Amino acid sequence: MKNRIVEEPKRRPVAERLRKLRISIAERELDALLVSQPENRRYLSGFTGSAGWLLISEKNAILATDFRYVEPARGESPAFEIVRTARELGDWFPGLVSDSGWHKLGFEANFVSYDSHHKLGEAMESKKVDLELVPTTNLVEQLRAIKEPEELDFITEAVKLADVAFEQARAAIRPGITEKEAAWTIERLLRQEGSETVPFEIIVASGPNAALPHARPTDRIIGPGEPVIIDMGARFNGYCSDLSRTLLLGKAGNTLEEIYDIVLSAQTTAIERVESGMDATQADRLARSIIEQAGYGDAFGHGLGHGVGLAVHESPTLGPGSSGSLADGMVFTVEPGIYLTGQGGVRIEDMVVLENGRARVLTGARKDSS
Amino acid sequence: MKNRIVEEPKRRPVAERLRKLRISIAERELDALLVSQPENRRYLSGFTGSAGWLLISEKNAILATDFRYVEPARGESPAFEIVRTARELGDWFPGLVSDSGWHKLGFEANFVSYDSHHKLGEAMESKKVDLELVPTTNLVEQLRAIKEPEELDFITEAVKLADVAFEQARAAIRPGITEKEAAWTIERLLRQEGSETVPFEIIVASGPNAALPHARPTDRIIGPGEPVIIDMGARFNGYCSDLSRTLLLGKAGNTLEEIYDIVLSAQTTAIERVESGMDATQADRLARSIIEQAGYGDAFGHGLGHGVGLAVHESPTLGPGSSGSLADGMVFTVEPGIYLTGQGGVRIEDMVVLENGRARVLTGARKDSS
Repeated sequence: MKNRIVEEPKRRPVAERLRKLRISIAERELDALLVSQPENRRYLSGFTGSAGWLLISEKNAILATDFRYVEPARGESPAFEIVRTARELGDWFPGLVSDSGWHKLGFEANFVSYDSHHKLGEAMESKKVDLELVPTTNLVEQLRAIKEPEELDFITEAVKLADVAFEQARAAIRPGITEKEAAWTIERLLRQEGSETVPFEIIVASGPNAALPHARPTDRIIGPGEPVIIDMGARFNGYCSDLSRTLLLGKAGNTLEEIYDIVLSAQTTAIERVESGMDATQADRLARSIIEQAGYGDAFGHGLGHGVGLAVHESPTLGPGSSGSLADGMVFTVEPGIYLTGQGGVRIEDMVVLENGRARVLTGARKDSS
Repeated sequence: MKNRIVEEPKRRPVAERLRKLRISIAERELDALLVSQPENRRYLSGFTGSAGWLLISEKNAILATDFRYVEPARGESPAFEIVRTARELGDWFPGLVSDSGWHKLGFEANFVSYDSHHKLGEAMESKKVDLELVPTTNLVEQLRAIKEPEELDFITEAVKLADVAFEQARAAIRPGITEKEAAWTIERLLRQEGSETVPFEIIVASGPNAALPHARPTDRIIGPGEPVIIDMGARFNGYCSDLSRTLLLGKAGNTLEEIYDIVLSAQTTAIERVESGMDATQADRLARSIIEQAGYGDAFGHGLGHGVGLAVHESPTLGPGSSGSLADGMVFTVEPGIYLTGQGGVRIEDMVVLENGRARVLTGARKDSS
């Protein structure tokens, strides 16, 4: 009995995810879907290896992977039939589908390379398999956008790890150390707190570097009175967190203090007003309109936020040109920013989950700038 | 004058790399090549951002990237004209090529997704640009396979960082700690020694886990008398190193000691005998034949090695089914292994460079198993 209890939390979500995916597959009049995007693959199967293909139809759930991962796959993906691949697609793929009776096989068009698509087609042709490859997008990503309770638990844990590490690092981020030293201090704390490999390279951007939304830590020594943007995240059971704070180290000057207040106001307003059912562009407008009214519209050059889950950037995207609307169960960042070339910048980022129509803030890190 | 001296080492290789690439482009009767694979992009331009396209013709060298990276790109890629992209390909790409007079544009077929290829075609069609997209592979990768002196310096530095960290970690990898703790100790040492973000997740695989060539560190406590495979690497100026050692912690038993000696003999023999001009498959045979003769042929389930540079896995590939031959200037791993399900395994990996026809070993870490 013990075994069953241990395994159930793994198996239940997989069965439910496959059930939902099969509805999407049928709606698109496909017979099966080929999944190779790593996070999609993990989401559907539990498989964490770096290479493999899922083949999912009404009746089948197959995981094809190479010799390195066959053994681990049996443990991670009990709901899947494990097939060992050969080096060349032509040597294993046609055999898997030749007797299926399928006519249309979907593949992930924004992940599969031009070359792999070509090789899949060639492999089937060479074995006289008559199966049409149909480009699809977002079939799995749209499922991933709505988090299950277990996923939310993992994300919450990842958020806490980042909160704790940031609080500990805060005292160390002071004039006199370099951006790289500060970033490494943060990473060490994250890992010591229990984070898996961090989901993205930590940003510590000081002074004029803080004007670059995606700066990398440099050997620049952080100076007094400078803005420092910290953008960091943890990972727990594969799930990510994402946290940005801006510190103003001492008297940073009127402009920076002003934009700090504007960004904070835009951020808290967006969190208060964002709602399930709202278009993603509308959500972006909540913050953007405040920044525009303050005269800094041109200096907010990125979207308001993005979904976070197994990937640190996933659905939904909240920006000026986004499509789709928000829904309960979505987890995303709210992170407006203002960037002034040569002077610096401010970004403040929390993670939220939509529940009962409104945003509940997951992030706990303090938002004062000192 | 000082500025020129600082910038020259950056500019010289870029000019020479572009010169060589332009020869390849002309040989394939292309008018230009679109490069988006991150390491290829960095190699050709110096650009380290996470998104961007290079467009290289006889006369042009353009780097198109989004608002986040326009400023950094100007500093990193002085040989390139920097163009700011819009969100949709259709909004910026056709304009770049519409007056070019080009007929054939190569793209990286094993990197560009089916969807991006489709969108590039659509974007041009919508603007009545008559430019054929031609799939290419390996145009830049084949240049990257032969290292320049400066690249070899960076790789040598990355190798040294791994050597030093391994030597320091050696004492800590003892029965009683978990694989994860050991891996984190190694990573901490690598970073403290000056490695950039490590190029791959460090492997510490103990006991039966050592039978999995690509095991991930687990919470398993390393026991006495067990084999422990450590596979780790550092990064310096973007260039990677890759080092594997196997420790036998105490009396590991006759079989493991026997396979240790076989793997070591296969590895040192391959290093002694590998030559420029040799087929990559022949190089693999050098080690594989020894392991086969010892009766463990089936237990060496991967190739002998792989090139290392800006990517930790790049050209050349040395395996049973590889194509191409080895040449002076190539840097690659020599890493035979034997894996026995349930019992454990052994892998020993050095990095070498081919010079004057023979392999010079870059790795300095000791190869004794204790």
